[in-house]
Amino acid sequence: QVCVIRRSRAPSCRSSQFNVPPSALLVARPVGVCSMMRLPVQASAEGLDVAFVGVPLDTGTSNRPGARFGPCQIRTESAMLRRYNGSTGAAPFDSLRVADIGDVNVNLYNLPDSCRLIRDSYQEIVASGCVPLTLGGDHTITYPILQALAAKHGPVGLVHVDAHTDTGDTALGQRIYHGSSFRRCAEEGLLDCGRVVQIGIRGSSYDPDPHKYCREQGFRVVPAEQCWMKSLEPLMREVRAQMGERPMYISFDIDGLDPAYAPGTGTPEIAGLTPAQALEIIRGCQGLNIVGCDLVEVAPMYDVSGNTALLGANLLFEMLCVLPGVKTL
Amino acid sequence: QVCVIRRSRAPSCRSSQFNVPPSALLVARPVGVCSMMRLPVQASAEGLDVAFVGVPLDTGTSNRPGARFGPCQIRTESAMLRRYNGSTGAAPFDSLRVADIGDVNVNLYNLPDSCRLIRDSYQEIVASGCVPLTLGGDHTITYPILQALAAKHGPVGLVHVDAHTDTGDTALGQRIYHGSSFRRCAEEGLLDCGRVVQIGIRGSSYDPDPHKYCREQGFRVVPAEQCWMKSLEPLMREVRAQMGERPMYISFDIDGLDPAYAPGTGTPEIAGLTPAQALEIIRGCQGLNIVGCDLVEVAPMYDVSGNTALLGANLLFEMLCVLPGVKTL
Amino acid sequence: QVCVIRRSRAPSCRSSQFNVPPSALLVARPVGVCSMMRLPVQASAEGLDVAFVGVPLDTGTSNRPGARFGPCQIRTESAMLRRYNGSTGAAPFDSLRVADIGDVNVNLYNLPDSCRLIRDSYQEIVASGCVPLTLGGDHTITYPILQALAAKHGPVGLVHVDAHTDTGDTALGQRIYHGSSFRRCAEEGLLDCGRVVQIGIRGSSYDPDPHKYCREQGFRVVPAEQCWMKSLEPLMREVRAQMGERPMYISFDIDGLDPAYAPGTGTPEIAGLTPAQALEIIRGCQGLNIVGCDLVEVAPMYDVSGNTALLGANLLFEMLCVLPGVKTL
Amino acid sequence: QVCVIRRSRAPSCRSSQFNVPPSALLVARPVGVCSMMRLPVQASAEGLDVAFVGVPLDTGTSNRPGARFGPCQIRTESAMLRRYNGSTGAAPFDSLRVADIGDVNVNLYNLPDSCRLIRDSYQEIVASGCVPLTLGGDHTITYPILQALAAKHGPVGLVHVDAHTDTGDTALGQRIYHGSSFRRCAEEGLLDCGRVVQIGIRGSSYDPDPHKYCREQGFRVVPAEQCWMKSLEPLMREVRAQMGERPMYISFDIDGLDPAYAPGTGTPEIAGLTPAQALEIIRGCQGLNIVGCDLVEVAPMYDVSGNTALLGANLLFEMLCVLPGVKTL
Amino acid sequence: QVCVIRRSRAPSCRSSQFNVPPSALLVARPVGVCSMMRLPVQASAEGLDVAFVGVPLDTGTSNRPGARFGPCQIRTESAMLRRYNGSTGAAPFDSLRVADIGDVNVNLYNLPDSCRLIRDSYQEIVASGCVPLTLGGDHTITYPILQALAAKHGPVGLVHVDAHTDTGDTALGQRIYHGSSFRRCAEEGLLDCGRVVQIGIRGSSYDPDPHKYCREQGFRVVPAEQCWMKSLEPLMREVRAQMGERPMYISFDIDGLDPAYAPGTGTPEIAGLTPAQALEIIRGCQGLNIVGCDLVEVAPMYDVSGNTALLGANLLFEMLCVLPGVKTL
Amino acid sequence: QVCVIRRSRAPSCRSSQFNVPPSALLVARPVGVCSMMRLPVQASAEGLDVAFVGVPLDTGTSNRPGARFGPCQIRTESAMLRRYNGSTGAAPFDSLRVADIGDVNVNLYNLPDSCRLIRDSYQEIVASGCVPLTLGGDHTITYPILQALAAKHGPVGLVHVDAHTDTGDTALGQRIYHGSSFRRCAEEGLLDCGRVVQIGIRGSSYDPDPHKYCREQGFRVVPAEQCWMKSLEPLMREVRAQMGERPMYISFDIDGLDPAYAPGTGTPEIAGLTPAQALEIIRGCQGLNIVGCDLVEVAPMYDVSGNTALLGANLLFEMLCVLPGVKTL
Repeated sequence: QVCVIRRSRAPSCRSSQFNVPPSALLVARPVGVCSMMRLPVQASAEGLDVAFVGVPLDTGTSNRPGARFGPCQIRTESAMLRRYNGSTGAAPFDSLRVADIGDVNVNLYNLPDSCRLIRDSYQEIVASGCVPLTLGGDHTITYPILQALAAKHGPVGLVHVDAHTDTGDTALGQRIYHGSSFRRCAEEGLLDCGRVVQIGIRGSSYDPDPHKYCREQGFRVVPAEQCWMKSLEPLMREVRAQMGERPMYISFDIDGLDPAYAPGTGTPEIAGLTPAQALEIIRGCQGLNIVGCDLVEVAPMYDVSGNTALLGANLLFEMLCVLPGVKTL
Repeated sequence: QVCVIRRSRAPSCRSSQFNVPPSALLVARPVGVCSMMRLPVQASAEGLDVAFVGVPLDTGTSNRPGARFGPCQIRTESAMLRRYNGSTGAAPFDSLRVADIGDVNVNLYNLPDSCRLIRDSYQEIVASGCVPLTLGGDHTITYPILQALAAKHGPVGLVHVDAHTDTGDTALGQRIYHGSSFRRCAEEGLLDCGRVVQIGIRGSSYDPDPHKYCREQGFRVVPAEQCWMKSLEPLMREVRAQMGERPMYISFDIDGLDPAYAPGTGTPEIAGLTPAQALEIIRGCQGLNIVGCDLVEVAPMYDVSGNTALLGANLLFEMLCVLPGVKTL
Repeated sequence: QVCVIRRSRAPSCRSSQFNVPPSALLVARPVGVCSMMRLPVQASAEGLDVAFVGVPLDTGTSNRPGARFGPCQIRTESAMLRRYNGSTGAAPFDSLRVADIGDVNVNLYNLPDSCRLIRDSYQEIVASGCVPLTLGGDHTITYPILQALAAKHGPVGLVHVDAHTDTGDTALGQRIYHGSSFRRCAEEGLLDCGRVVQIGIRGSSYDPDPHKYCREQGFRVVPAEQCWMKSLEPLMREVRAQMGERPMYISFDIDGLDPAYAPGTGTPEIAGLTPAQALEIIRGCQGLNIVGCDLVEVAPMYDVSGNTALLGANLLFEMLCVLPGVKTL
Repeated sequence: QVCVIRRSRAPSCRSSQFNVPPSALLVARPVGVCSMMRLPVQASAEGLDVAFVGVPLDTGTSNRPGARFGPCQIRTESAMLRRYNGSTGAAPFDSLRVADIGDVNVNLYNLPDSCRLIRDSYQEIVASGCVPLTLGGDHTITYPILQALAAKHGPVGLVHVDAHTDTGDTALGQRIYHGSSFRRCAEEGLLDCGRVVQIGIRGSSYDPDPHKYCREQGFRVVPAEQCWMKSLEPLMREVRAQMGERPMYISFDIDGLDPAYAPGTGTPEIAGLTPAQALEIIRGCQGLNIVGCDLVEVAPMYDVSGNTALLGANLLFEMLCVLPGVKTL
Repeated sequence: QVCVIRRSRAPSCRSSQFNVPPSALLVARPVGVCSMMRLPVQASAEGLDVAFVGVPLDTGTSNRPGARFGPCQIRTESAMLRRYNGSTGAAPFDSLRVADIGDVNVNLYNLPDSCRLIRDSYQEIVASGCVPLTLGGDHTITYPILQALAAKHGPVGLVHVDAHTDTGDTALGQRIYHGSSFRRCAEEGLLDCGRVVQIGIRGSSYDPDPHKYCREQGFRVVPAEQCWMKSLEPLMREVRAQMGERPMYISFDIDGLDPAYAPGTGTPEIAGLTPAQALEIIRGCQGLNIVGCDLVEVAPMYDVSGNTALLGANLLFEMLCVLPGVKTL
Repeated sequence: QVCVIRRSRAPSCRSSQFNVPPSALLVARPVGVCSMMRLPVQASAEGLDVAFVGVPLDTGTSNRPGARFGPCQIRTESAMLRRYNGSTGAAPFDSLRVADIGDVNVNLYNLPDSCRLIRDSYQEIVASGCVPLTLGGDHTITYPILQALAAKHGPVGLVHVDAHTDTGDTALGQRIYHGSSFRRCAEEGLLDCGRVVQIGIRGSSYDPDPHKYCREQGFRVVPAEQCWMKSLEPLMREVRAQMGERPMYISFDIDGLDPAYAPGTGTPEIAGLTPAQALEIIRGCQGLNIVGCDLVEVAPMYDVSGNTALLGANLLFEMLCVLPGVKTL
């Protein structure tokens, strides 16, 4: 009767080779040491097809800190999630070996060293062919993650949902912070720049022509204004064509959404995307050669309801549901 | 000058046979022992056309509790409501005798006994022909309410707004909890299954085909995906045709709305309906033979602004405005 | 089974002439339209020995507003209170007729007019010999309350617990606001100045000798510094001797307590009294000729836990327990 | 290295005659004594083209108070704003002299006197030709502001975004409160009534025909229902035609937006506008002869995330971006 | 570099047979899937001297629910705790094998069944000689825990810190809820009634002589009034003498403390104990034959700071530090 | 009528050479661009006796971040403070020239660089003989502040109130973070180690003998246990004797107080000091040769009431009141 994380192999599935989240019909939601979807926790990515990984770093944040607690609260709220995607029929746990492999031990007092620790961890994770689904953490972390992924897969395509392009150069004299990740990636050749799409961009800017750098790299920038009150399915048809069959990555900054849906974040911008559009974007990536995903910038203290973290947990589950190899029933 | 609930018979209406909520132009909003819309409170439904009733139960909740305080905070926030529906012209207090008849005394430690207490109370309420408008409480309560209503009216049609179909069978070995109400109702013949519509359904599921049971009963399930960025007026035209002239019930789970609008609830699901759509649904029920309504699952502590309760209070007022016999000016 | 406020005459007491708060052993705490202690609500003080009255005014506040919602949340949290004072043995409902008579309808947009409305209401209340226990509201309200009380009883003694002496003259050019109440009372002869004690006074001041006015009137000022880490029972022995047998009033500003205990208030000052000391003060008034009491300055929004209001409700109950005529078992 | 408000003249602009907000690339966001956009603060409007002014008054509020702290928190959250409007290309600080001139010293205890103080202050501000952008405060303040503006410009056109028409006559016997401002303005001839548009109106009402007074004055009322799920660009084309070239004013009550986006406000109404629509409205005013703007009714305590104030700050910045004389790059 | 719970065997201790919490000097505090003190999680109590166990039940709560999330947030906040007790010199991890064994799977919809599940789980836990330290959950859970402990150890002594004696008989007709646990225990002979001490008791009561039942059983009741502003070391000397060498249990309801220190709880009572006194009580138990401990009634939503849970985590650590077999340096 | 910071020279003092905070009797509390006590803001310390300075850094925090917003909210809440210390009679503004000189521009992404920026700024501030009163920020900042002060004054004595000694060596491989400040200071000879007192120390520790390093340096450590329920006046007599007449510094970490009083902080420890004791400590420093003071670790988001910041503001005011040269009336 004592239920720990290993108990999350629910009775009906115990003969299976796959982990499954425990059903709230069998194990009460508040029960269990909280891992992502209450899945088993294991120390390495060995033997996994997909790993949830936390990166509790927030010292790259320019405004409100707190994303260091994002992984913890996303796991806590993920107890709401169930095994199947009733909307799309996706059954990720029927064909993929998935677990939570804990957090990268970041260096809170030294950003470049944190980047090194993250990169090294992800090199280990992807070495065995495992796809990492990352619980952020501020957006700084995508830079070292892509270093590890590009080392394995070469330059990747990118679907980047965000209020900001995160292509700044330096801030307060530093080259590494949460607003420069994709410039660093571009400089280091980690991105296949012709296959980069940035969706939801908006807000005041340091430059009257804020997307110049992106355009010069060949990124497609889709401002929030082009998304207002529209289905994004047509956009995603174009994105799928653009991405083709080569490896690509999804980087989802929760501030891509309007602060009404995601108040718990550090640099909110008004008039953003809706969760329905977020689902259209993620579901629109089905069939692509996804080699990794992240959900970043959940700063729980700014949303005492826990709902921003719940939203993040849902988006991570939706990313899992469109990974290569997921069966749809 | 002491203003209590009886004082809510405002001066300009004192010769009237009808109760009216006190105007904030005459009685300051914070003034008065809070009843629904600051209407008079009376001990029984005798002599009333419509009664607001609270059912402060939340022990059927699978995730976050707190809906036991839903009735109290809905009443508190309802001080914002005024007498008329300026959008539709409805003037419910000009032709209906309406009061707040307090709360059912639930048994917090025994769910089946709570259901019995609720059913018995509602049998009394509906005996005299009064229409109950219920302030929940978790969704468990709709089951005993419909037992009482169906005993009087026969199987009823149902407009059910919710993120979840609430047609689970058992959870943690129990048949009664907030996720099984409508299966219990269907099993007992309380619903006219060909006139059941469930709107806003979404979220992860325990089964890859989550609406199978509903389809088998003949329920119409309208997933949230079919509602995104659309007016629901066309849907409601179909619903009105389907409902016909026979008795029907409106059961509105506040989690049918997106958590951005209703953060104060126990089992939120992302990408839900908007308040505008909620109004289209309720206003779209005008002309139907409504025999009762409920608004459930407001859990105030998860929304310290009070706005979820305010939303619930507004939706209850809109339900009042479409009841049979309401004059429209 | 429908439980409204009248139902608060609990079964075991139904033959009694006295109202009693319903026991949570019989009526679940969240049940009922919230009146103070879930007592019956009645429109006037007729026939009562003691009346709980709300005065939801906060426009006399110099810093954080919100005390207009004090009465409402004190009533809500008072559902925790039970019938007897187990510590002192007081059984107020065994010998006194007590009810909640609702709120004074204040004028939110005109402070002097609010004062007039309050004074007129209290003249009615005290006319019949009923003792008012007031749920504030900001401290402005004590001025018109004392106008009504002094009209009946003559100048009254005063036990005044507060961080501030509230003897300012004018602010922003106005003579009526929450910092000048007791100067206005003194000027109008409502206080028996030799029997005025102010306890818990502290904080920065507009004058280097901030208690000069009080001393000149003959008030005793007990700064918080004299109370730190001490039992106040010796002080209260002196106070009882000073008050004698003539009419006296208790005015308790919740900010007399340290903000740790009462964060939900408008003008908090650090290093205040403890709830234990508050109980020593109130219980120390037993035997005095108390003609009225108030508990003011609960501003709920600054304490989302509700505990400041709960504290206020407890202090009001303790005041009730020391009124003349209460039996102690 | 000590950064105060004067330091906000960022190095790259120091030879300029214009103030600019400091870039977060050079001055960390939490740094600085918070003025609007961290602009320089100066004691008078002398020499300015545009002045941000705070009016921290909330005693005209009928429900939840707190807007007195609106100016403070709008300034705090405005640290997120950057120099340019990347969406429209507007570069207001390249051609306009802008500063924060602090707050009007209101009289918290006397509404009519506050109105006098506001009117007198704004007469000074507009005397020199400076355009005031006001940080409210409750909506009462627009009445004395328009007294000052109309004294200079004659009756003005009005784009009024709000849930309420604010054309009530009296409340609690008073003619001045936050629900009567535009009736007072109309009565005094401050408005060019044929050029008044009220957008976003909704909610229950004191009258079954709530817009009768507005229609009689010639105001155009655009209910929220007409805005649901629609772009407002067509509406704004009509509004621009209607406004013509004569002076007009923008009065934006944050409760015009849905409470999901702006929970921190005193009298929220469900089913309101979206921030995207707010931007369409404000950007749709480009080219008009705007003589002043306000953003009112931000009550921070009801949104602990700070995001309502951030929304307000953004809307004020957007208003600045459409003022006459702003260059677009 | 990926840090999961197993990684909590910190490098410097890896050759040890004992688990130790990871040092924040080596592993950043936000890192890791949160177990109690970030200790290893294991599925059973096999091989352990001490086990932290969660019991996430709150359906026995009479007022505010939420204690179901107590175990989760206590674990989260316990990341602040370090390996040694610097005040007492206790080094529990140097001599005891300690782990977190997860949660009992409670039945949220059926209290008696939850009690059965808890009792069965604890019988397993104590079978191997492991001492359970319980993270509650509401106080109902102590009844089945003591059923399991008494089955092994015979009737136990009890140090019970609480605002309430929890010796009620029935509530709402039920015998099992959080207010009757110790009457049930006494009735079943689980307590050695001459060795029962209840400390911190206070609050209004259902009976004018509220401790009569306790006295009749031989319990010692120490009201909060006897603790005010006093060191409890003298009391604990007496308690130690009374407890002797036979098995005893510590049951600590967080509401024994004043709500200022522990706002996050369901049935707060004013004027309670201080954390210093709580430490005196627990440290005063050193040397006793402690066979189990619990810390109950942490309801996190009522304290958004997390500090009530942090307090609970500290008290559990202090209990660990006084267990038999702990070395003191 | 427009009130900005310069207006804070209140009318009654306008001929004075001294700045004074505006009285709330003349300028309403919510009015004004918030500086510390609404004093004038100036760009440098030139001509000042005392300067309030903010250091909005929190990236040295090991647990909950947020202290970067400490200076802003301390300023906001300081609007409650009045000109005189009524308890001690201190009149600091009658003899000292005091202003707010804004914030040091920290480098959020590079801790050592932030330290450099802070040190350089403070060297400028103290060059002219001005005494800095610092609004932190996390405790990292005291290290560079003392570098600047010791460069001018030589090694300083220290009254250090805190839950932690902050004498750790390295964390996560770094030598600079908020837990090592005083070891760095000692190593660099900035402290006169025989005149260092650390008060309020408590909590779990990384070592069973946690004060060994302090003892070895000659620091006096006063654990919280020695302070419980005691006046600290005797301690402060000893401290005054120990400090003598040479320069000393007061470093006050708000977590020295119990979290009940100061929930808004990053690394709270239970059973701490009370505000009364804090006042005894600070007032007990009167007469000492104080060359600087700081109040650190206020992290506002963990206390939505604002009261932790208000407490911090009060403590800074009390520090001002004991500076050399303050007149006492």
